Amino acid sequence: MLYSIFLICSINKESIIDVEGFVRTVDQKIESCSQHDVELHCEQVWVVSSAAPRLPLLIEDAVRPETDDALATVNQDTRLDNRILDLRTTTNQAIYRIEAGVCKYFRDYLMEKDFIEIHVPKIISAASEGGANVFTVSYFKDKAYLAQSPQLYKQMAITADFDRVFTIGQVFRAEDSNTHRHLTEFVGLDLEMAFKFHYHEVIEVIGDMFVHIFKNLRDNLQEEIETVGRQYKSEPFKFLEPSLVLTYKEGVRLLRDNGVDMGDEDDLSTPAEKLLGRLIKQKYDTDFFILDKFPLAVRPFYTMPDPTDKKWSNSYDMFMRGEEILSGAQRVHCPDLLSERAKEKGVDLEHIKSYIDSFRYGAPPHAGGGIGMERVTMLFLGLDNIRKTSMFPRDPKRLTP
Amino acid sequence: MLYSIFLICSINKESIIDVEGFVRTVDQKIESCSQHDVELHCEQVWVVSSAAPRLPLLIEDAVRPETDDALATVNQDTRLDNRILDLRTTTNQAIYRIEAGVCKYFRDYLMEKDFIEIHVPKIISAASEGGANVFTVSYFKDKAYLAQSPQLYKQMAITADFDRVFTIGQVFRAEDSNTHRHLTEFVGLDLEMAFKFHYHEVIEVIGDMFVHIFKNLRDNLQEEIETVGRQYKSEPFKFLEPSLVLTYKEGVRLLRDNGVDMGDEDDLSTPAEKLLGRLIKQKYDTDFFILDKFPLAVRPFYTMPDPTDKKWSNSYDMFMRGEEILSGAQRVHCPDLLSERAKEKGVDLEHIKSYIDSFRYGAPPHAGGGIGMERVTMLFLGLDNIRKTSMFPRDPKRLTP
Repeated sequence: MLYSIFLICSINKESIIDVEGFVRTVDQKIESCSQHDVELHCEQVWVVSSAAPRLPLLIEDAVRPETDDALATVNQDTRLDNRILDLRTTTNQAIYRIEAGVCKYFRDYLMEKDFIEIHVPKIISAASEGGANVFTVSYFKDKAYLAQSPQLYKQMAITADFDRVFTIGQVFRAEDSNTHRHLTEFVGLDLEMAFKFHYHEVIEVIGDMFVHIFKNLRDNLQEEIETVGRQYKSEPFKFLEPSLVLTYKEGVRLLRDNGVDMGDEDDLSTPAEKLLGRLIKQKYDTDFFILDKFPLAVRPFYTMPDPTDKKWSNSYDMFMRGEEILSGAQRVHCPDLLSERAKEKGVDLEHIKSYIDSFRYGAPPHAGGGIGMERVTMLFLGLDNIRKTSMFPRDPKRLTP
Repeated sequence: MLYSIFLICSINKESIIDVEGFVRTVDQKIESCSQHDVELHCEQVWVVSSAAPRLPLLIEDAVRPETDDALATVNQDTRLDNRILDLRTTTNQAIYRIEAGVCKYFRDYLMEKDFIEIHVPKIISAASEGGANVFTVSYFKDKAYLAQSPQLYKQMAITADFDRVFTIGQVFRAEDSNTHRHLTEFVGLDLEMAFKFHYHEVIEVIGDMFVHIFKNLRDNLQEEIETVGRQYKSEPFKFLEPSLVLTYKEGVRLLRDNGVDMGDEDDLSTPAEKLLGRLIKQKYDTDFFILDKFPLAVRPFYTMPDPTDKKWSNSYDMFMRGEEILSGAQRVHCPDLLSERAKEKGVDLEHIKSYIDSFRYGAPPHAGGGIGMERVTMLFLGLDNIRKTSMFPRDPKRLTP
């Protein structure tokens, strides 16, 4: 529809228009627009697509810092219920460009290091980790499950001689957790590699990969990071090169020195993780670190025990701003040891027979890990909720849009 | 375990060994190995991981051309049941490197053209295309579905101002089809873009993208393509630059001229598609072509009708070796027309209310399409079964490994 100049103010907000006119330079700098030196003299305006007259939320409210008490802001459910409007804010436009960057730099680094991208099934015949927290699917006349992790398939690709693999795809967790950092469906950035002498080769690759991601985000998406910071204030993300690696024991010592009462082999609670992040930030000035050699007791049966002391294991977690964003380990690649460890952990050998059997035809020592894409984006930007970095989030209470 | 030189022949095939020794040049070229000019003088051999003494299949059988009648080959189910051994063939090592290339060149081209990578949910609250052929998931106390296509979410990203998006992810189809080209779970390479003047801008981008993929596979993965060709013979894949675009009408005329009895607006049967592929190869010497302007009657309700003649639509399919690998269209972006088209097609408006509502706040004209990754790899290489290009395929009868 062609509009006369006098009717333009009647066009609904958020409509899409075509404009025919002339761009003219101006004598006086225009302060109220993002273009300071030119203005557009319209001759004709067409409405390509008209928005409904009443919008469920206003973009200017949705982009306002939550600390700005005097003016309206938009709560999270209203945002998510009207996600296509909410996503139009400059903040969200920036967040999802940064998230695309996380994936790009993850892949770029790994492909440069001879990793091969693979794709693995999400519908599986047996619940991967014992059956808890798994979604059930009707599969023709059978029952199937949604994969909680691509781990078995990454490992099979390694035993199938692919040497170094990564895969990006949905991960499903039927956990009834309504926290700031849990989703029932998220994007896993997973990698697995055979190593030559020691699993620390893998820690080094993953640590360097994170540095590659952080540096490229910082250098190539600076404007987007600043845009997000205007709505959601946070300290710039700090990291060291090479990455800081501490042992679990060192981490626990640091916590104990600061008043936390815990034993050497106790698992880290979420508050303890948070505190450890703050202590390490104070001491080493980094928001990213790696914790190596977790107690064997707190890790799954497929984790390789430390060959010199079975109290410990060849496993590691990685943290951003005191929250875990990667959990990984050297995996047991010997079927006999795997059966033994499963028995010790009380895992039913019948349920994991095919997993164990997949190591019977020659399997190289290997290690890997899985990263939550949304968590990396959230924590890099210092955001407070994972729903801000999942375009269409899924949690126990939200299945739409 | 350290082995003496005399016991090496007792090491089981497919075991993984470490060798310590010296590389020495030789006077006479060695014909029986891939290294012709040097040989390895072992001093010590360790078995890192021992394979079971009996293998369910032999790699030399698994890599043999199926035309070689005199010697053993391995049938598909045995291969898939023992996938980690089967994947060790040079052929499979090559196939999955080529498939990784398909994804890489798809992304590279689109990112170069300012497309943004997005991730969209696979668990959805309503069956996307009316409820047929959809897998059901138990979602806590509710019922949910596995997405048959990311289309709605790509379109929402477009209406949310992202302008050009792509997404790579699992697509689920509960079709009980046991054919050479159907899987219940496959990887979709999907894209969607707003255009300025005409949906042919989108056809051009997608056509150029395929040329980019084909050229890079041909030039950068030549050795892998030859390796696959040694086991599975086929003609090299041919394509034109720019891509050949024919109208549906022209396609039907070509078929009619060659004895096929069909009306202007009849849908193409699979055999007709195959024949059309052969006729176009003869006439234009290309294995890739685009068929534009399908009859409106054979396309879904969300397809934009041709504005000049409602018999036709702004929609297209793309073909490789006579098989469809992309289906796409300009989408209806106006909620009133969308409701009208749904009614004409007998679609229940209640079920698609949220789909229609997503266009109520300003939506630019846009078009896109979805590509089956495994099909592209299969047809580029001239393979006869999609199970050869899915690392761990899923069909109505196979859920393992």
